[in-house]
Amino acid sequence: MKRKPLNDAPCCIARSLDQIGEWWSLLIVRDILLLGHRRFGELLESLGCARNMLSARLKRLVACGILTTAPAADGSAYQEYRLTEKGRDLYLTLIALRQWGERWNSRPDEMMPHLVERGTGTPIALELRTQDGRPVGLRDIEVRRDG
Amino acid sequence: MKRKPLNDAPCCIARSLDQIGEWWSLLIVRDILLLGHRRFGELLESLGCARNMLSARLKRLVACGILTTAPAADGSAYQEYRLTEKGRDLYLTLIALRQWGERWNSRPDEMMPHLVERGTGTPIALELRTQDGRPVGLRDIEVRRDG
Repeated sequence: MKRKPLNDAPCCIARSLDQIGEWWSLLIVRDILLLGHRRFGELLESLGCARNMLSARLKRLVACGILTTAPAADGSAYQEYRLTEKGRDLYLTLIALRQWGERWNSRPDEMMPHLVERGTGTPIALELRTQDGRPVGLRDIEVRRDG
Repeated sequence: MKRKPLNDAPCCIARSLDQIGEWWSLLIVRDILLLGHRRFGELLESLGCARNMLSARLKRLVACGILTTAPAADGSAYQEYRLTEKGRDLYLTLIALRQWGERWNSRPDEMMPHLVERGTGTPIALELRTQDGRPVGLRDIEVRRDG
């Protein structure tokens, strides 16, 4: 399927989608960020996709500055994939997606891992707030185009 | 490119990605939610994709319960696409992606529309908070697998 290129779209949501490329790429970020995977083999096993597909996606994520490569921490000949600051910053997107999925796509028999504060174990959630800290919902939002 | 089906993945992030299907589908949700588009022709013009592609994606979003169809509000023969509650609930994911894009993929010459509180005009942002209201960052998060 041919798709219109988004990298020049006049909307940064569209350009972001272009960089992430496709959903599989976001699963790579999830694996590195939340599961701590760092090596090609670990990602291959976790994602269950073909070697050449994983390889192409990793290359693209490196080119976009979302991932970077480094020699393995254990001194072996392996190469590790690490998230850049830009890549780590995708965590809110992943958590938003997780929160949506938990609400709408979870299964009764499924044990969902909880997102909690390290140390205290207090549950954590994504919220929309005003600059001065008041929680707001979808109905309270307005998109303004002025400077 | 063949892809492994995600609809049975043991992770609700993966299953959510499967339902949204591909990035274009999220742009359809953006257009309906943030720009107020409702008709096939409006979406076609806004997204600039082929008719058959848009048609297939809309069908899929309806099948997943993200969109629903209804007769046009003006009484004409047109059909409108509306977000269901599940569809509207994708707003946090869209805002997370927007926030990431604004930080990492915006252009110096670009006028980014602002997200503000209706009425007061106070800027709005997505935040991660504990149940008792304290802001937390990526470093404070722990994923717990116990019930």
